[in-house]
Amino acid sequence: MAELSPLLAARWSPHAFDPSVGLTDGEAASLLEAARWAPSAGNRQPWRFLLGRRADEAYKRLFVHLAAENQRWAGQASALLLGAYLLPATPTVAARTPASPAPAAHGSGQAAHDLEQPGYDRARATYDQAQAVYDLGQAVAHLTVQAGAIGLHVHQMTGFDRAGLAVDLALPDDVRPHVVVAIGRLGDPLSLPGDLRRRETELRHRHPVTDLLLGLSPG
Amino acid sequence: MAELSPLLAARWSPHAFDPSVGLTDGEAASLLEAARWAPSAGNRQPWRFLLGRRADEAYKRLFVHLAAENQRWAGQASALLLGAYLLPATPTVAARTPASPAPAAHGSGQAAHDLEQPGYDRARATYDQAQAVYDLGQAVAHLTVQAGAIGLHVHQMTGFDRAGLAVDLALPDDVRPHVVVAIGRLGDPLSLPGDLRRRETELRHRHPVTDLLLGLSPG
Repeated sequence: MAELSPLLAARWSPHAFDPSVGLTDGEAASLLEAARWAPSAGNRQPWRFLLGRRADEAYKRLFVHLAAENQRWAGQASALLLGAYLLPATPTVAARTPASPAPAAHGSGQAAHDLEQPGYDRARATYDQAQAVYDLGQAVAHLTVQAGAIGLHVHQMTGFDRAGLAVDLALPDDVRPHVVVAIGRLGDPLSLPGDLRRRETELRHRHPVTDLLLGLSPG
Repeated sequence: MAELSPLLAARWSPHAFDPSVGLTDGEAASLLEAARWAPSAGNRQPWRFLLGRRADEAYKRLFVHLAAENQRWAGQASALLLGAYLLPATPTVAARTPASPAPAAHGSGQAAHDLEQPGYDRARATYDQAQAVYDLGQAVAHLTVQAGAIGLHVHQMTGFDRAGLAVDLALPDDVRPHVVVAIGRLGDPLSLPGDLRRRETELRHRHPVTDLLLGLSPG
């Protein structure tokens, strides 16, 4: 097993969250800050979020659109976060918002052109829906790592009614809901329904790394 | 500024890499391990990688397909990594590969169902191209965090000839190249062409977090 940062090695996606704790303002801010500073193609930052904290209106609206399977456990989470992406055809906020400062002394370099070079038209043309959702994936991953850094766990769900939620939130056409993230502190697996209780303690697994590697064609 | 893990706060995407160092076997293994343990919908793990180390055949093949803009600087990187995703219509490796063990003592829970519940057909139906590329985004983000943990930087590029590379590598139709990641140790900004040298030391910027938040519709 190769060396792995403890933040990554310890990450997993629980079903059991502690229903007795809420998400503090500081925790919420740090999670959003992590997502905000993720890289994106051309620094377009095509991610949008709705954060619901337990029992508030946003939480209720997100919860009601979850698949029944997810409603069995996700209501114990301290927060539910909607991750949405902006369809690229729309002018982005980048066109009208001035810069805000960098987060750290180390961040003296710039990341405004993380993925693309200005003037490279073919690359720009690849900034399609796939790139927007790829960048959202990066932002939620960075949020997930930050969650681990402050003692929280997250569990991402695609099992929710995207269309119904978009209507309920009156989202603009170019804002596409993609994922709902349950966030909280680890709870008691014994609080879960039987089948989930069993799965909660199963060994995690992944394909061998060799199965993930592409080969070179001969010649 | 909210609290942010140093690994995330210090991350940025340089153009200047140190051409005097290579990527060690241990570094390569740890980067791939981080990507491997990222979460994915239904644990499908739809990410595939080709790792080229400086001057090897894979590196050369990746480099030649980069946009000219990227070729100006990326050849100094210790490694170039292709990130590709599997189109979901294809049977995944999951169907034929047995489990491999978890990476850490903390990982006693399971993550096999990170995003979806088995039996939830609507959620399964959302496992489309967007979800595959979202999951690739998560895997590359986890790799990026691991790079930071071992003193490396990465710079993602979408500016490359995807079609040409797919032909050159003889990739199957269901394997879609999406990103090429330059990996290495920080180099001297003065080694860069003038315009890149200037950009290398510019302040990073992001939209204010309030611009990333969706609101609730009235009622």
